[in-house]
Amino acid sequence: MAEETGGRPEDNYRPRYAEIPSFMRYPIAGGPDEVDIGLIGVPFDLGVTNRPGARHGPRQVRDMSSFMRRSHHVSLITPDEHLRIGDLGDVPLNPFSIDKCVELMTAYYHRVVDAGTAPLSVGGDHLVSYPILRALGRDGPVGLVHFDAHCDTADTFLGAKHHHGAPFRLAVEEGVLDPKRVIQIGIRGSLTDPDIWKFSHDSGMRVVYIEEYFDRGGPDWVIEEARKVVGDGPVYISFDVDGLDPVYAPGTGTPEAGGFSMYEAQKMVRGLQGLDIVGGDVVEVSPPFDPTGNTALNAATMLFEILCVLADARLRARGG
Amino acid sequence: MAEETGGRPEDNYRPRYAEIPSFMRYPIAGGPDEVDIGLIGVPFDLGVTNRPGARHGPRQVRDMSSFMRRSHHVSLITPDEHLRIGDLGDVPLNPFSIDKCVELMTAYYHRVVDAGTAPLSVGGDHLVSYPILRALGRDGPVGLVHFDAHCDTADTFLGAKHHHGAPFRLAVEEGVLDPKRVIQIGIRGSLTDPDIWKFSHDSGMRVVYIEEYFDRGGPDWVIEEARKVVGDGPVYISFDVDGLDPVYAPGTGTPEAGGFSMYEAQKMVRGLQGLDIVGGDVVEVSPPFDPTGNTALNAATMLFEILCVLADARLRARGG
Amino acid sequence: MAEETGGRPEDNYRPRYAEIPSFMRYPIAGGPDEVDIGLIGVPFDLGVTNRPGARHGPRQVRDMSSFMRRSHHVSLITPDEHLRIGDLGDVPLNPFSIDKCVELMTAYYHRVVDAGTAPLSVGGDHLVSYPILRALGRDGPVGLVHFDAHCDTADTFLGAKHHHGAPFRLAVEEGVLDPKRVIQIGIRGSLTDPDIWKFSHDSGMRVVYIEEYFDRGGPDWVIEEARKVVGDGPVYISFDVDGLDPVYAPGTGTPEAGGFSMYEAQKMVRGLQGLDIVGGDVVEVSPPFDPTGNTALNAATMLFEILCVLADARLRARGG
Amino acid sequence: MAEETGGRPEDNYRPRYAEIPSFMRYPIAGGPDEVDIGLIGVPFDLGVTNRPGARHGPRQVRDMSSFMRRSHHVSLITPDEHLRIGDLGDVPLNPFSIDKCVELMTAYYHRVVDAGTAPLSVGGDHLVSYPILRALGRDGPVGLVHFDAHCDTADTFLGAKHHHGAPFRLAVEEGVLDPKRVIQIGIRGSLTDPDIWKFSHDSGMRVVYIEEYFDRGGPDWVIEEARKVVGDGPVYISFDVDGLDPVYAPGTGTPEAGGFSMYEAQKMVRGLQGLDIVGGDVVEVSPPFDPTGNTALNAATMLFEILCVLADARLRARGG
Amino acid sequence: MAEETGGRPEDNYRPRYAEIPSFMRYPIAGGPDEVDIGLIGVPFDLGVTNRPGARHGPRQVRDMSSFMRRSHHVSLITPDEHLRIGDLGDVPLNPFSIDKCVELMTAYYHRVVDAGTAPLSVGGDHLVSYPILRALGRDGPVGLVHFDAHCDTADTFLGAKHHHGAPFRLAVEEGVLDPKRVIQIGIRGSLTDPDIWKFSHDSGMRVVYIEEYFDRGGPDWVIEEARKVVGDGPVYISFDVDGLDPVYAPGTGTPEAGGFSMYEAQKMVRGLQGLDIVGGDVVEVSPPFDPTGNTALNAATMLFEILCVLADARLRARGG
Amino acid sequence: MAEETGGRPEDNYRPRYAEIPSFMRYPIAGGPDEVDIGLIGVPFDLGVTNRPGARHGPRQVRDMSSFMRRSHHVSLITPDEHLRIGDLGDVPLNPFSIDKCVELMTAYYHRVVDAGTAPLSVGGDHLVSYPILRALGRDGPVGLVHFDAHCDTADTFLGAKHHHGAPFRLAVEEGVLDPKRVIQIGIRGSLTDPDIWKFSHDSGMRVVYIEEYFDRGGPDWVIEEARKVVGDGPVYISFDVDGLDPVYAPGTGTPEAGGFSMYEAQKMVRGLQGLDIVGGDVVEVSPPFDPTGNTALNAATMLFEILCVLADARLRARGG
Repeated sequence: MAEETGGRPEDNYRPRYAEIPSFMRYPIAGGPDEVDIGLIGVPFDLGVTNRPGARHGPRQVRDMSSFMRRSHHVSLITPDEHLRIGDLGDVPLNPFSIDKCVELMTAYYHRVVDAGTAPLSVGGDHLVSYPILRALGRDGPVGLVHFDAHCDTADTFLGAKHHHGAPFRLAVEEGVLDPKRVIQIGIRGSLTDPDIWKFSHDSGMRVVYIEEYFDRGGPDWVIEEARKVVGDGPVYISFDVDGLDPVYAPGTGTPEAGGFSMYEAQKMVRGLQGLDIVGGDVVEVSPPFDPTGNTALNAATMLFEILCVLADARLRARGG
Repeated sequence: MAEETGGRPEDNYRPRYAEIPSFMRYPIAGGPDEVDIGLIGVPFDLGVTNRPGARHGPRQVRDMSSFMRRSHHVSLITPDEHLRIGDLGDVPLNPFSIDKCVELMTAYYHRVVDAGTAPLSVGGDHLVSYPILRALGRDGPVGLVHFDAHCDTADTFLGAKHHHGAPFRLAVEEGVLDPKRVIQIGIRGSLTDPDIWKFSHDSGMRVVYIEEYFDRGGPDWVIEEARKVVGDGPVYISFDVDGLDPVYAPGTGTPEAGGFSMYEAQKMVRGLQGLDIVGGDVVEVSPPFDPTGNTALNAATMLFEILCVLADARLRARGG
Repeated sequence: MAEETGGRPEDNYRPRYAEIPSFMRYPIAGGPDEVDIGLIGVPFDLGVTNRPGARHGPRQVRDMSSFMRRSHHVSLITPDEHLRIGDLGDVPLNPFSIDKCVELMTAYYHRVVDAGTAPLSVGGDHLVSYPILRALGRDGPVGLVHFDAHCDTADTFLGAKHHHGAPFRLAVEEGVLDPKRVIQIGIRGSLTDPDIWKFSHDSGMRVVYIEEYFDRGGPDWVIEEARKVVGDGPVYISFDVDGLDPVYAPGTGTPEAGGFSMYEAQKMVRGLQGLDIVGGDVVEVSPPFDPTGNTALNAATMLFEILCVLADARLRARGG
Repeated sequence: MAEETGGRPEDNYRPRYAEIPSFMRYPIAGGPDEVDIGLIGVPFDLGVTNRPGARHGPRQVRDMSSFMRRSHHVSLITPDEHLRIGDLGDVPLNPFSIDKCVELMTAYYHRVVDAGTAPLSVGGDHLVSYPILRALGRDGPVGLVHFDAHCDTADTFLGAKHHHGAPFRLAVEEGVLDPKRVIQIGIRGSLTDPDIWKFSHDSGMRVVYIEEYFDRGGPDWVIEEARKVVGDGPVYISFDVDGLDPVYAPGTGTPEAGGFSMYEAQKMVRGLQGLDIVGGDVVEVSPPFDPTGNTALNAATMLFEILCVLADARLRARGG
Repeated sequence: MAEETGGRPEDNYRPRYAEIPSFMRYPIAGGPDEVDIGLIGVPFDLGVTNRPGARHGPRQVRDMSSFMRRSHHVSLITPDEHLRIGDLGDVPLNPFSIDKCVELMTAYYHRVVDAGTAPLSVGGDHLVSYPILRALGRDGPVGLVHFDAHCDTADTFLGAKHHHGAPFRLAVEEGVLDPKRVIQIGIRGSLTDPDIWKFSHDSGMRVVYIEEYFDRGGPDWVIEEARKVVGDGPVYISFDVDGLDPVYAPGTGTPEAGGFSMYEAQKMVRGLQGLDIVGGDVVEVSPPFDPTGNTALNAATMLFEILCVLADARLRARGG
Repeated sequence: MAEETGGRPEDNYRPRYAEIPSFMRYPIAGGPDEVDIGLIGVPFDLGVTNRPGARHGPRQVRDMSSFMRRSHHVSLITPDEHLRIGDLGDVPLNPFSIDKCVELMTAYYHRVVDAGTAPLSVGGDHLVSYPILRALGRDGPVGLVHFDAHCDTADTFLGAKHHHGAPFRLAVEEGVLDPKRVIQIGIRGSLTDPDIWKFSHDSGMRVVYIEEYFDRGGPDWVIEEARKVVGDGPVYISFDVDGLDPVYAPGTGTPEAGGFSMYEAQKMVRGLQGLDIVGGDVVEVSPPFDPTGNTALNAATMLFEILCVLADARLRARGG
């Protein structure tokens, strides 16, 4: 009876509302060495400055990700055709201490990277990208395609160095992220301080405000721009659901009106096919603020989009 | 006191939140012979493969359809000016057997067509289009303008021939739908099997994926394409709310991110004015997943849009 | 096909989620002369002092009242066995003027009473009881069993004589309600002014605060008390859902913590069997504040409970 | 890293919102032979006569069941101290055919019983109890303590023998359930037909209407009654959440006002300790109608209560 | 400890979920003479023709407006840098009489204008714009940029002159609004009567239907058009959230499918910078219909957008 | 115009949905020295072990507390008749560090107590009681009447000393709470560890499990017990909404089925009149999990109940 439990059934036609929900119904794996791409939950929201709830993100995204089917309808990529994909469960974390969590996440992702596994994570708040980049960039800084309403390169905030508005500054300061190979797409929203994203500009990141994005032609233009910025080296994809307009993602901690649409988001991620993608994340899903479930559905959809281009990259990387 | 009950009041200004909700406040009719266009509920969701709830669709759409007023603000069509429009109630159905329901629906719609009444239905899941087409196409296959995220031309599924992913294959196989005069607009979403919509392609349907739709210019382009495909013959309009992006229709069983907008949907249906439209439906509204009521509001709005072009066609057909 | 539309089907087994929702699926009647008991919606909330929304009550109660079946499981009363029961639709009202609505309601209920029909109404806010009592008590004051958290015998409020906190004072002042034959059950809640319900006490109403209700034994005790108070004469039953604890009725305008339960409410109404009941109402259902639908379900259930004792009384009255 | 995935962690203190949600965080088991008590999801709602959605019950209950901790605060039973408890996943089912599902469930539960495993299931609609009883009662009819608003002993309904209002009639007719050892607690609600539960009475079941339940003293009295009825033989516990008042379980298909409370339900199940309990279920949780999550929380709580008395019985049965 | 209560803290970094919510966390002011721009709530919904609830708008917008930060990310305007901005609380109103409310609002806004304060209001239904214009236009008619799905220039409705579909007709008729300097953007929706907006056309207002808006290029085109229409004189901005597509604003009384997006709305308001703006409002937010909170968030965002261009105009007006 | 802003109006009849929401519409005070009883928000949830969101509690309770009127309907206490009551705003806190927050809260409440003001607080999670007790008990330990499902006397949890399951252990260990004068009412729920509440028992607290509570007669019995335990000395009242059954308080972080009702809770607090009450709190309201608003309404109601007995005590204390 083992085949009826624990993961994506061989018969892809079985009812999608059934079974214990692993990410996109892929098998629950015993550890990173069992998979080429590891789907990982990060139930963490101690880094938020406003509404909490992202700690519940991984479960809700697992649930809604059952809507994802096996193959991509445009690229026709079938991630698990040539690669082992699995749900690694959640990073074990401490519910009281941000700093301890950063340590635990860092150690966890080092183990994942040690196993040669590409991590694809679901947050959790955006601080989770920082320990992931520490692991992925330990042998040399990586590039970044970053979808978000916020640059997340703020300084220490109310005494805290570790918070969800700072992961990419921390990663640059530590040398694991190359600011010259970073593009930030969708930036907008009123400002606590006009200089709040100064670090992005000063360090050489390519900051694409939503106004420039729309004025220059949206997805088609920005994909080209992104490819120029990140070039051939290893690159990470970080997708904060608040980059979307809040109608697509009401269930998030810091919504900002006036973002891009899901269609555009999907098109942008698809446009990254061919890059040397080494991992990715979808973050800031806060289920208590998501009564329709659309935020989790959209997050699951973006997870699948990233998975497809990540799988394609991993396959090419090993000569597949 | 009769004038205070049972339907759309002569005084169109009376409060829209009041009264027993018939579709768009049109009179409740005693039978199809009393109306030129019959508004019909089909409380059926046994054909779904995932989330149920569409059996509650007709009631919720009736409730929200009170927002619809008498005349169209662009075409200035007033459907009930020259035609008798009425709510025929719901098709009587069996809650346990798909096959029995297909029989009941088929018989019901034959009676409607026998009466010379044009049916405009509210589902229910998409399987309901199949028995409707059986009645409308009994004297010769009709054409179809089909708005949806899915082609709904799949094969037998887990042993079932009758399910909501197959109505248009069934209709073609039975000779009541002419695949050469079918256009399917908005197709997208991950695939259980890359060949899942093979029947559409092989049978000659015009399949417009959402990517082609947006790349070629959206509504304006696709209307022209649709008019070419369906030509002068009788044509049916089927509107699955999951063709819309899920932000417009969270209350549905199989949402797919990245669809078209309500503005576009309205524009597309308006663009069909002048065709020989013989009936239509709006399907897959699942109220339990629709906390804001937007799905039902949008379904009611599309129902009114289809009603306008249908009324215009019926009026022209009788030389009106 | 007439039998498939417009009301409670002969076959009581047909699916309850289907069909245009009349109250408890009874037939939609053409006028009060066609029925012995008329179910009437009163979509009115201009009398509220706090949260509006009760104008949407009749529709929502109609929808949930499909859960009601034909016979009572304790009394075994089947209301439509010997009596004609029908849904008369909604009282036509003006959305801008309280005073005009009071006139319209008064005229409407006079027509109902003229026809010899017993009215059973669904509000709307509690002001609707006033015009109903004007019609029922025109030939002599009636008694009242009143379930509520508030006495609703307040004075002019911010210049308005007609508001939802005053119907029973207005009815007494007009001589259509006999205060000596009034019992008010469930009164509680903080007070704007310690003397706010002075009129109830001064006029001789029996006011049962929730504390006395619970201390003396709840339903069993209070039924006996009610029977003593109202005696043999004609009596009206008014059920404000805010008499229930707010967990049973979150969807109301002026909730007060600490009320009675549905089981108790049902028992109390059943205990009124044998009185000369001449009509009743269920009021203050505000659907926009009722996300679970429980308020409307409970209101529909109380409507059925009142219908059973009302039908029993009407049948006895005509020697049935 | 295996210890971080797939089930109840050894360290019971780890955050309850984290990890892939198995029932009550017990390990995901490979098959029934690996456990003494198997927790099983049954994602099935084809048997409903009104609102669907119970197919989503198992997932939602898994999610909320993380609130359950290791030991019972009254009995101090710790189910997994001496027994192997595990989540067996969901019964594989067909989404289109009731009859096929009955076969699949029957076969599945026979395998469970073959393994000597006691099944504790989460529905799904109440029809699921029938195939479970077929397996448990194959060597001789079992007794039943049944909590519900409905007797679920109705006849064929609209042509269907298999539906959620009939499981216990079917089981009696097949000889797997002994009607003389059945008690049904909480029965109430308006009746389609006064004779609808005739089979219960005629076959000798002890039917406790909610009125008798409250009048005779509630939990304490009914436990004694139940123990008398079921005696020493093997007994099954079936808990339909609609036995609870709808405020405790809005998320169900056929709510009936006026039920018992959670405190009472818990007390009743605890009172069954010492009986020869062979299995149990919690059914009719319909998440789309449960915006607060209370229905699933309460279902998970009742699941834990049943697990405790079941574990105690299993342990005693093997002389533990 | 005074600094910890009552308004926008000097330290803009303090948690946004904390404190008594004034509009955008600006200080609560003692009266209009203490501020240059007064933020004012108008808890009024007696003018609605359909769903009520806008009386709860000011509170909900206050709550969500905490998301607004100090500076605009495009214009870099910081409204409170050179001007005194404050929350003046709510206009005191009568809950029963439309006409009395119009008087109270008129008197209130005269006091505001007397103090030389520019009013920026949050409704409440759209009727509130009428008394505001009476005060602002008392020394000469002002111009208007009006975002809405409806022209709100209807005639007397069911006997009422004062209702939410008529404010701009009333203002023109009274000589406080110059119809030649009015532009109405986003008009759409089915029509009770084809002539319903005749007054707009006849009086010379520039009516931009949503179809013209999209066909001619959206925000960029319409801003230019608006600037032409309103010219150099004093102009008022009125933003009805139902101008937005209902996915952006489900929480409103009269939603109309097919509107503009938040990004477009923001761009349009920003494009008005440089005009002689004398006040503004955001109206028709009905929180009971807004389960995600998006309507209030978007209303708050538009409030901030209007505040920025208003502040800029006020500063220029005084030679700042 | 000052009288129209900032607090409870002199005219208690003004609409309750209007105005900036201070607690129960009492005036917003400049500091503790201006009031006898200070209503204080504590927007803190870093101490939770499961669902967050209590940081949003103070705002939501402020909003719903407008339902509270001036006088108590049983005791006829009018808190602000002889005492100055005011809303002191929120305690300023750090969103990232539990330990820093404990310091900030401690300092804040010392300032309140220095001013001779009795604090009545709204959490926030239950950890907030600890710093409050530090201030109130600094000159000698106080007693405690504690309503809750949990004893909250747990040990260090995952390395954290400060968490919401430990406030009363911390307070005892620090000598500010006298365990012999503590009663804990409503305790229940499954246990991570059978010894989890050992500290309560060992230190001499009177622990009333919900079973004992119901078996011995509920409110009447437990009030007597409580009065015996706390005696004549100063006593604090702490009301955790999870003491209520989850149907009364779904919006909380750690719900436990089977609690007491609101009526019982109100009766219990009223029964404490006459004790030397020095302060109180209502905690653990988590608005994101409270779609009906009932949790906040009930919290506001308990706040008013506590205020009444606190006001009575303060008045007596000063010989009033």
